[in-house]
Amino acid sequence: MVMSRKAATEPSKQVAPRRRGPVLERAILTAALEQLSTVGWRGLTMEGVASAAQTGKAAVYRRWPSKQALATDALQAALPAVPDVPDLGSLREDLLFLVLRMREAMYSQSGLALRAVIDESDHETAHCFVRMVVEGVVEPTKHRILEVVRRGVGRGEVRPDATGDIVADVVPALMMYRSKMGGREISEHDLVEVVDQVMLPLLRP
Amino acid sequence: MVMSRKAATEPSKQVAPRRRGPVLERAILTAALEQLSTVGWRGLTMEGVASAAQTGKAAVYRRWPSKQALATDALQAALPAVPDVPDLGSLREDLLFLVLRMREAMYSQSGLALRAVIDESDHETAHCFVRMVVEGVVEPTKHRILEVVRRGVGRGEVRPDATGDIVADVVPALMMYRSKMGGREISEHDLVEVVDQVMLPLLRP
Repeated sequence: MVMSRKAATEPSKQVAPRRRGPVLERAILTAALEQLSTVGWRGLTMEGVASAAQTGKAAVYRRWPSKQALATDALQAALPAVPDVPDLGSLREDLLFLVLRMREAMYSQSGLALRAVIDESDHETAHCFVRMVVEGVVEPTKHRILEVVRRGVGRGEVRPDATGDIVADVVPALMMYRSKMGGREISEHDLVEVVDQVMLPLLRP
Repeated sequence: MVMSRKAATEPSKQVAPRRRGPVLERAILTAALEQLSTVGWRGLTMEGVASAAQTGKAAVYRRWPSKQALATDALQAALPAVPDVPDLGSLREDLLFLVLRMREAMYSQSGLALRAVIDESDHETAHCFVRMVVEGVVEPTKHRILEVVRRGVGRGEVRPDATGDIVADVVPALMMYRSKMGGREISEHDLVEVVDQVMLPLLRP
């Protein structure tokens, strides 16, 4: 009753239904992620996020004192999930499954937002975001790649000493490099090349 | 005579000896590169460059209308040379020679300046700088790597079908990835790993 009376007395200030607590927070974080993935880190403003979430700037600042704090929570809530890789019967099929899922994550809304903050923020801020990505995405991805490699060792398709960290870095490194230097999105064809021309020769016994 | 009289009438405005044409231009470009490698793209100002080059802001603006034009010329004039690789008798030695030279270039003044502009400038500006790096450094480096690989094919150390573009991208990709995600400079030890754990197994017949 209190809420509906209050809303009724402020018809012009309150276009969207009044939301509180977790619901409003979720709307703000969603808006922040959407802004990051479209206008980037430098285009992100507290005003823009408030407006996109149909709330006031004060409601945003009350919860997040800075753009960095807001972006951190928005990204943390949306880190791309690192997929389980089912046993598809061969190293090649397992690797292709994984790299194609990695590509999807890279071009998802949260993937674009993550790259925007890392590419555009200043050195110190970028360092915080890189740490978040390393813990939340890079390390879990590395573990997943090594799982696939070890499964290949079990099948006799992979030499047993090919399970070093540097081997697990090859796929994400090529994806980052080609996306940065190639001037275009990585295609599925590029990833088939990565598997067939690099990973399979590198791993075979 | 005109010059010395002019200098004599402006003693307070002219601390450094009056330089003209190519000498002054060189001093400005050197100062711009130094600023890029220390304060980065965002810290670079026309005022700062003028002051470091001991000249006036007008002298800088007369030659370069914008920060981007100045940085482009400064970087173009200082692109790290891609080294010739002497035949050291084995694929491993040739590769180690090349990757260690690449690391030197990466941490040289112009390497630091190049990474600053690519990492910090906005998307469109970064795109122009990336194109410069691709043409001036990435492509020549790729050719050098493929030369080393083909020499290995000639020696029987490398399978003949390992001369694709994607294979030549592996070393620079790992160097960029580890430098970006590792939070520290790439060490010589990292590069020995790249050669021994990735390139040699990938290339062998």
